[in-house]
Amino acid sequence: MNKGFILWFTGLSGSGKTTISQALEPELKARGCKVEILDGDVVRTNLSKGLGFSKEDRDTNIRRIGFVAHLLSRNGVVAITAAISPYQAIRDEVRAIEPNFVEVYVKASLEACEARDVKGMYAKARKGEIKGFTGIDDPYEAPPNPEIICCTEKESVTECVEKILSKLEELGYI
Amino acid sequence: MNKGFILWFTGLSGSGKTTISQALEPELKARGCKVEILDGDVVRTNLSKGLGFSKEDRDTNIRRIGFVAHLLSRNGVVAITAAISPYQAIRDEVRAIEPNFVEVYVKASLEACEARDVKGMYAKARKGEIKGFTGIDDPYEAPPNPEIICCTEKESVTECVEKILSKLEELGYI
Repeated sequence: MNKGFILWFTGLSGSGKTTISQALEPELKARGCKVEILDGDVVRTNLSKGLGFSKEDRDTNIRRIGFVAHLLSRNGVVAITAAISPYQAIRDEVRAIEPNFVEVYVKASLEACEARDVKGMYAKARKGEIKGFTGIDDPYEAPPNPEIICCTEKESVTECVEKILSKLEELGYI
Repeated sequence: MNKGFILWFTGLSGSGKTTISQALEPELKARGCKVEILDGDVVRTNLSKGLGFSKEDRDTNIRRIGFVAHLLSRNGVVAITAAISPYQAIRDEVRAIEPNFVEVYVKASLEACEARDVKGMYAKARKGEIKGFTGIDDPYEAPPNPEIICCTEKESVTECVEKILSKLEELGYI
């Protein structure tokens, strides 16, 4: 059986977290891993309905994702989380409870993410229809020491996936 | 690898759900199973902080437990849930998403549970200090067709554990 671990993606909305995690999933499965993706939207529906986007509610949401990812990881599953998770302190809190924690910073400038605006959220945030949107009127704290950085303005999805797989091999996870 | 499944305990507060599930855990582990217990209190702390005991909040809480138990089960883990889970409709909802679902009705009369009153909750509920307490001023819907019934007024913890293990063998889960 493969070892479980948490692969924790963090980055602005539209940076590419979900895209990369979905491209990575079949690669990990092909290597015999069990994989669960805890996507921000899936989690908000199934674990965190009723929570908003205040600092406190965001923290609660991320703690919950961390709790579930940890339950999966300690049972041999690769738990991929793909929520914005903007605050360093809470990411560190999860790292503290989970020894097998790999942080992937999906890096793209606010301008690039806003130009993509896949879900039309930035437009709404600029109009003030959404309050507390990360990068607009709520901070994003980039991780100072992530295990992996994917620069999605320069690297293709395939390149990002290969980079992650190489690092996981190097770290002995796969 | 063993097959994952959900072992869903339901019963009044004080009926013996947690006690039986804790006695069962080492037996399942000894048979090579991976086991996670999603106890009502643990879940309320880590998944459902902020939720109360209204019908709607209880339903949300049970759906969340079901979601997490299902994630574990489909990855080969025995997910034991030990929340009161008083409403049949929501238990059936979880059964509908999880093909490997074994319901254990931990049966004890309200009188017996109230006499035990391990956490002092019944006393508070009788005084009106807790509102919407299952069995006092909120209904408990006993399952009509559980896979297993443990009668904790007549059967010892060891007998209950043996009964559950026999049934799980018969059903091909262990």
